[in-house]
Amino acid sequence: MQLGMIGLGRMGGNMASRIREAGHSIVGFDRAPDSGRDVASLEDLVSALAAPRVIWVMLPAGAPTDSTITALASLLAPGDLVIDGGNTRFIDDKAHAEELGARGVHFLEVGVSGGVWGPKNGYALMAGGEQEDFDRALPIFEALKPAGEAGLVLAGPVGAGHFSKMVHNGIEYGMMQALGEGYATLKHSELIGNPSEVIASWRAGSVVQSWLLDLLTIALEQDPDLDSMPPVANESGEARWMVEVALELGVPVPATTAALFARQTSRGGSDDALKVVSALRGQFGGHITEK
Amino acid sequence: MQLGMIGLGRMGGNMASRIREAGHSIVGFDRAPDSGRDVASLEDLVSALAAPRVIWVMLPAGAPTDSTITALASLLAPGDLVIDGGNTRFIDDKAHAEELGARGVHFLEVGVSGGVWGPKNGYALMAGGEQEDFDRALPIFEALKPAGEAGLVLAGPVGAGHFSKMVHNGIEYGMMQALGEGYATLKHSELIGNPSEVIASWRAGSVVQSWLLDLLTIALEQDPDLDSMPPVANESGEARWMVEVALELGVPVPATTAALFARQTSRGGSDDALKVVSALRGQFGGHITEK
Amino acid sequence: MQLGMIGLGRMGGNMASRIREAGHSIVGFDRAPDSGRDVASLEDLVSALAAPRVIWVMLPAGAPTDSTITALASLLAPGDLVIDGGNTRFIDDKAHAEELGARGVHFLEVGVSGGVWGPKNGYALMAGGEQEDFDRALPIFEALKPAGEAGLVLAGPVGAGHFSKMVHNGIEYGMMQALGEGYATLKHSELIGNPSEVIASWRAGSVVQSWLLDLLTIALEQDPDLDSMPPVANESGEARWMVEVALELGVPVPATTAALFARQTSRGGSDDALKVVSALRGQFGGHITEK
Amino acid sequence: MQLGMIGLGRMGGNMASRIREAGHSIVGFDRAPDSGRDVASLEDLVSALAAPRVIWVMLPAGAPTDSTITALASLLAPGDLVIDGGNTRFIDDKAHAEELGARGVHFLEVGVSGGVWGPKNGYALMAGGEQEDFDRALPIFEALKPAGEAGLVLAGPVGAGHFSKMVHNGIEYGMMQALGEGYATLKHSELIGNPSEVIASWRAGSVVQSWLLDLLTIALEQDPDLDSMPPVANESGEARWMVEVALELGVPVPATTAALFARQTSRGGSDDALKVVSALRGQFGGHITEK
Repeated sequence: MQLGMIGLGRMGGNMASRIREAGHSIVGFDRAPDSGRDVASLEDLVSALAAPRVIWVMLPAGAPTDSTITALASLLAPGDLVIDGGNTRFIDDKAHAEELGARGVHFLEVGVSGGVWGPKNGYALMAGGEQEDFDRALPIFEALKPAGEAGLVLAGPVGAGHFSKMVHNGIEYGMMQALGEGYATLKHSELIGNPSEVIASWRAGSVVQSWLLDLLTIALEQDPDLDSMPPVANESGEARWMVEVALELGVPVPATTAALFARQTSRGGSDDALKVVSALRGQFGGHITEK
Repeated sequence: MQLGMIGLGRMGGNMASRIREAGHSIVGFDRAPDSGRDVASLEDLVSALAAPRVIWVMLPAGAPTDSTITALASLLAPGDLVIDGGNTRFIDDKAHAEELGARGVHFLEVGVSGGVWGPKNGYALMAGGEQEDFDRALPIFEALKPAGEAGLVLAGPVGAGHFSKMVHNGIEYGMMQALGEGYATLKHSELIGNPSEVIASWRAGSVVQSWLLDLLTIALEQDPDLDSMPPVANESGEARWMVEVALELGVPVPATTAALFARQTSRGGSDDALKVVSALRGQFGGHITEK
Repeated sequence: MQLGMIGLGRMGGNMASRIREAGHSIVGFDRAPDSGRDVASLEDLVSALAAPRVIWVMLPAGAPTDSTITALASLLAPGDLVIDGGNTRFIDDKAHAEELGARGVHFLEVGVSGGVWGPKNGYALMAGGEQEDFDRALPIFEALKPAGEAGLVLAGPVGAGHFSKMVHNGIEYGMMQALGEGYATLKHSELIGNPSEVIASWRAGSVVQSWLLDLLTIALEQDPDLDSMPPVANESGEARWMVEVALELGVPVPATTAALFARQTSRGGSDDALKVVSALRGQFGGHITEK
Repeated sequence: MQLGMIGLGRMGGNMASRIREAGHSIVGFDRAPDSGRDVASLEDLVSALAAPRVIWVMLPAGAPTDSTITALASLLAPGDLVIDGGNTRFIDDKAHAEELGARGVHFLEVGVSGGVWGPKNGYALMAGGEQEDFDRALPIFEALKPAGEAGLVLAGPVGAGHFSKMVHNGIEYGMMQALGEGYATLKHSELIGNPSEVIASWRAGSVVQSWLLDLLTIALEQDPDLDSMPPVANESGEARWMVEVALELGVPVPATTAALFARQTSRGGSDDALKVVSALRGQFGGHITEK
């Protein structure tokens, strides 16, 4: 089938290639002239596609996605389908659906997991929207997803896809933190000669077998003490959003929160609280930790 | 090779079968007459084995293992090798090594992961002890471990095997908690029609691909709302020990601790703290939550 | 001075009494006929007050407060002043200010701490708004606040008062949880004969001297094992809002979050996550904790 | 009464002064010649005291205290009483009691809270031992404790005093962290002009009124942004010991643990876990946070 792809960056470009390899036709657009785009404007993109159109938006969440959806709402025709595959926060999906829906344009939102391994292994896709729209886009999803039965789900109505991706990322944070805590405990113990070998051994037969464990093994082969890695990690929003949702739902998520706080702390977020602790220790005990 | 196996319960019995299937000879002993044992006493076990003997102890940690090692120390001869494959706390391994070493008996300790899947998939083995002893027992380890290169490690000197298994279990706690938090967040959201389908979809292409995710998918196929599961989980000690070790090492392990606390809380461990909260709310605000 | 008071429930009624005792004149209104109200409608309240009016709204946050402010916006005259002393979420204050401001009506919002001890000890007041409005209401604040210099602050513009109260309550959660954890540890130890006596002893000379400790001592005198207290506590929203704000600010608040999660867990919020843990333990280990 | 005091450092020296001011007679010993000691050796100290002797040991926990108690066991006579007022870990108290008890020497252990404010306000004292020994030392305790009824408890048998102090310090950690988190949230918000004023206002009428809040107010008066304070705090062991005890008792202490982890993290304890997170983000997403 024919697909318009907006956003030909690392994610969008790789996805477009995988879709083409599956035999589909892509018309690509990106603001950057050197992006390998097929058309030079949204208007040209819309003109180049046969109705009813299917257009995949793969842009940074927020303003770039918002403004593109607004533009598409005025350019597209009833019956066309827009798919937002970016990292939009799930609570923003409904407004996009309504904006397009007011013009009769259909909308799917899809959480995409895959990163640098997606081009090779396929992308995990979590969609939200109507079943009929999902079915219409199914050939594209089949091209993007990994081989086999898993890797694709219609999770619910609009919002459910990005909600699922958000929860996926929250679990990811918790698993990464668990691995990090285990590695650190091994590394600080005098009993363990080589934490890397212990971790590598767990890739078979153990309960913690996982893709993240495989990746950690690779990373430790490349850099056994992780000396090249900064003891600092940014948070990209999704685990934070999950914690906020869970707070409102009354569902405690302490491991996810611990992972999130570890990253925020690594960026200096705890400094002011620690200054209070230092100040109080100074006040009542005369203890001041040296800077 | 020939191996004495002490303890023919679920773990020991299954392991003995897997070792036999690999072509080795097992002389099994268990206190229970109906255990399928080959000999009726430790003395008979020792007599039945050709020197230098290799004996695998697969008993509950604590008194059963301790007393058996003490008995073996008096029955065995210099050059014999005892392997403790039970869940002994790593800080107790050294005493076992010394007790046996005083008689010239060698010692390996091995953390074993595998559970009900071990007979089919093989067991992950983390050993602690001397290289020469490890090499001597290697045919047995090869029989027990999964096919492929992973699943076996000599982690360091005596203690390092159970230490590694302890850390493995701590990571396991954290990963399970992360999955639990994600599932709970999906389940409480009105957006998600069927959390089971979302979770099943993650088995390919996603960052959270893991054996635990596969098992969760199976569990959800059997019982989509987990209605048959109690909202309660015991803790078996190893994550707790890991947290204690990490505390002493100055290595914060908040995700692991969160997972441990969740289990302790599910057993009522937080009740007294909550009673204080209730009492204080009553004192200053007149709020009493109904029982 | 003259003050209109809307809401004569436990908080509003006690506060009105304290203000009257300080020599001010109160015209009280409440929807309930048996509330001891002075007037039977908002219209009558407005008529009964001399311009420029000062009206204190002491109603439950959300719809009751929202609708009252909307009504006042149409009834009051430019130069009048409305004070919201309820537990409004700080992010809602600005809309109230704008709604009233469109009519020329001034607005202060005040976080009030005090509970059942307020009538006797005075109320801690955290205000948000303009300095001139704060100064106008100062006689009322002086009547409500405790004796001495502390207990009253103009924290910043509209929103800052409820923000401060929100943070106050978050700290309160953390302190209560810390006390609860300490009490529980004492109680579970065989070494400590009587946790109540230990806690009572800390009221002087210790670092943990605090009003909450005093209240805990009283509670333990009344019920030494807290047998009458449920091991369950509701959360009233404010600590949750603080955690959400801190998450967005990138400020880790792990102790506050721990306190909040303890309450949510006591209401069953962790049950689904625990069911996952149980299910996974069953899948890989054959362990099922009995219900 | 007459008291021997071993250790005339900041704590011991101040305590000796307070005891003298209450009219008691002190014979002081310290290894340092310039300590203002009354005698130059333990032997001289014992000779200078009339039997039955009462000797207060106020030394660093561990080797200094251990060796002094061993020396006293050989120098003292049956019926003498040794009081350990240092920060000995509670699990070490029993050995001290047994070592002295073998010689007929009585033993009390006392957790002492007070720091730099003790000389002025008095010290909170938590004792463990026999009632008769407690009664014998009561005049000294009365001299040290604050005025009023609180500030002194016989918490149970030997070990209970330091156990109580350990729990006290755990609560202290939690309260300090709660205050730190609150301050940091205020400081990062654009709504709050001056966090110091908000915090100072809470000293009356609020639920969080406490000595630590008073001290924080003082600290913020001295240094409104805490610029002179390092965002780093050491942990002195006692909260860690409490967490370990609670872990073994099955009592979750998440707020205390959060406070402890915050300090360990501030000393770099989380760096290796974060390096794993960075490494994994690099492996699957190509994200590397810049150092």
